[in-house]
Amino acid sequence: MIVVGELINTSRKKIAPLVDGRDEAAVQDLAQRQKDAGADYIDVNAGTFVEKEVAHMEWLVKTVQAKVDGPLSIDSPNPEAVAKGLALHKGTALVNSITAEKDRYQSIVPLVKEHGASVVALCMDDSGMPETADERFAVAEKLVGDLGDEGIAPERIFLDPLVRPVSTNPEYGAIVLNTIARIREELQGVHMICGLSNVSFGLPVRKLLNQNFFVLAMGRGLDAVIIDPLDKRIMSDLYATEALLGLDDYCMNFITKHREGAITL
Amino acid sequence: MIVVGELINTSRKKIAPLVDGRDEAAVQDLAQRQKDAGADYIDVNAGTFVEKEVAHMEWLVKTVQAKVDGPLSIDSPNPEAVAKGLALHKGTALVNSITAEKDRYQSIVPLVKEHGASVVALCMDDSGMPETADERFAVAEKLVGDLGDEGIAPERIFLDPLVRPVSTNPEYGAIVLNTIARIREELQGVHMICGLSNVSFGLPVRKLLNQNFFVLAMGRGLDAVIIDPLDKRIMSDLYATEALLGLDDYCMNFITKHREGAITL
Repeated sequence: MIVVGELINTSRKKIAPLVDGRDEAAVQDLAQRQKDAGADYIDVNAGTFVEKEVAHMEWLVKTVQAKVDGPLSIDSPNPEAVAKGLALHKGTALVNSITAEKDRYQSIVPLVKEHGASVVALCMDDSGMPETADERFAVAEKLVGDLGDEGIAPERIFLDPLVRPVSTNPEYGAIVLNTIARIREELQGVHMICGLSNVSFGLPVRKLLNQNFFVLAMGRGLDAVIIDPLDKRIMSDLYATEALLGLDDYCMNFITKHREGAITL
Repeated sequence: MIVVGELINTSRKKIAPLVDGRDEAAVQDLAQRQKDAGADYIDVNAGTFVEKEVAHMEWLVKTVQAKVDGPLSIDSPNPEAVAKGLALHKGTALVNSITAEKDRYQSIVPLVKEHGASVVALCMDDSGMPETADERFAVAEKLVGDLGDEGIAPERIFLDPLVRPVSTNPEYGAIVLNTIARIREELQGVHMICGLSNVSFGLPVRKLLNQNFFVLAMGRGLDAVIIDPLDKRIMSDLYATEALLGLDDYCMNFITKHREGAITL
């Protein structure tokens, strides 16, 4: 499982002042702790600062990579922020995100190409967010085809099937799970990623729903996720489910994590 | 989800003396609490009392049904115990279990027919427990076909794909999950049931693994389970996963259970 650590995002109340106030030590510490807890990518997002987003993104990329040895997820729909972030980034970044919407696609894909980055591609296009599994799959297939034409191999593409709340339509969970299963079967080599919290919007005990949705999605082929890696409970689900799905030979990683105290009920 | 409450089983240390000592009130109370917590069937098993099993089964069926209005899972491979249990049982019992092994099949299926019972059918035959998903599916298909020839409709059959420990073979979890998915797709109308604890045998934090395996199995089509319905955590996974899979319209049951205090993290 590829883990993207979600905590450095200025939409979080505690984070905004750290970024805006250039608190290097606090941001670096949060990045390091996510990395230590198992994050493969550290997400950086300053989208709430509309005017200052570009400057904040530059500072975030420099600051985090000065401390943490590893790639970032450069999280912005703003081509200028993505461009500045990528220009400073060391290693292979994950650009988060494009869609099949023409403007967004055309303004960001050249940057992905230029820097040899990987990219999160949301399964929506100019006609909006598809309702059915078939429509989502069609957008996914077009994205993978078009990106392939640009020389971006499936291994650099992280499709996000776009999770919507089951409280608004009871079928939304099953639609995403079926989309994941079909992409895993038909689009060889691509990664699939999603966030978890949308699924439980409007419902009580959201953490339980998010956890179970994560397990269900892994069971159908999700291989990347945007989560809080400091949440021991969700990381425990990750290690346990890898063991159950045969993705952890002889459960050695699960047993090791248990010995390290990383597994909790 | 069809829940079989597993607690009245003499292999449990606290239960054996209650049954052997004919403690009517205690056994009835345990049955009633399971029923109140959501059990659709109350399992009764006296298999550890080899000599007295038949008499104990008779007493259990009478005693539980004197208190609890609902069907039992008559849990024994012993045809005499099954016969005596069924003779006393009111309503449609679940016989737990047959296999495709000739002797066991031939000695129990006539009883299932005679009493119009439902039956748990384990996916194994005289050549033992199948290794691959294909072999398991073949046994399942043969069982459903043979039982159909006897007039036992798919709706009365609960196939158990037989969960084995991932600690002994990392593929065992995936094999069972794929078997479940294939049965759901190809054998219309049958139920699928399993126990959860085998999957985690030999590993730490077994409850976590059992919970996640339950969620994964529901995600592929499991619609019945043998569990402790007094375990709020596993019942919470059940209600949450039903909501996520679109099996709980507008999550009304999940919300109701939450209001009743039945949902826990």
